[in-house]
Amino acid sequence: MNKKLFVAGLALALGAGFTLNAVAQVKPEILVKQRQAAMTLQGKYFGPLAGMAQGKVPYDANTVARNVGYLQALSHMPWDGFNPSTSGVKSQALPAIYSDAAKFKEAQDRLTGAVDKLAAASKGGNEGAIKAAIGDVGKSCGGCHESFREKQ
Amino acid sequence: MNKKLFVAGLALALGAGFTLNAVAQVKPEILVKQRQAAMTLQGKYFGPLAGMAQGKVPYDANTVARNVGYLQALSHMPWDGFNPSTSGVKSQALPAIYSDAAKFKEAQDRLTGAVDKLAAASKGGNEGAIKAAIGDVGKSCGGCHESFREKQ
Repeated sequence: MNKKLFVAGLALALGAGFTLNAVAQVKPEILVKQRQAAMTLQGKYFGPLAGMAQGKVPYDANTVARNVGYLQALSHMPWDGFNPSTSGVKSQALPAIYSDAAKFKEAQDRLTGAVDKLAAASKGGNEGAIKAAIGDVGKSCGGCHESFREKQ
Repeated sequence: MNKKLFVAGLALALGAGFTLNAVAQVKPEILVKQRQAAMTLQGKYFGPLAGMAQGKVPYDANTVARNVGYLQALSHMPWDGFNPSTSGVKSQALPAIYSDAAKFKEAQDRLTGAVDKLAAASKGGNEGAIKAAIGDVGKSCGGCHESFREKQ
């Protein structure tokens, strides 16, 4: 395959969001867009689970299993976007993300850990345990936002 | 747990992106935001793989394995966002998405199939086969954009 054509084709295919993270420093605006994208999708797939835990949405084990699988991937995706290079880009990220990096990392690990526990509960099939685990994921979202996101 | 507090806490935790997909009709603007978020993250995690296939980025099997795992989830995420209710929202989506739904579904399946093949190749560990499979994923991106996305 003609390499130049291949590169041009990929650039066309991927559009403006195309970035070679490993090659060049990714622009701060792109990092913010990517981390916000991960948060948006966490909301998309966690929302219905929260609704089930609250009794607002009928419990559906298949939706839980699918969404939790997605969340196991998504819960790892935002964090490399919180690079100090982005601190000048307008967003709701608070400076504590960079001034208290250890606590921010703890909050990330709390989320990924809670999602993994939810995945284990989901495989176990006990609805009560699953709903409790959903609640713990929600608390980890809230705890991190409390410390590291501008009040809305 | 007090349910009202729990609901309020979750709403706070999740912010404006919080939607109960299974309860209420999700607003078209949110659907567009969510599908664009999925495309953004596909770009984030496919970009470095494309760079490796092109020889622009040093080949790294661990990055391939991680990114392909993420792409297996992400490649399923955009499609329910292309609901006819969104046709009035400004985006690059072409009307053919709705007028030729069968062809659009084929293009989705081509992507998810190509990503699954890349995942299998990644497990096999043959660098040449992996790079070829990365190329096929890129072609499936480009093929779909060619038919269903406004020219950029």
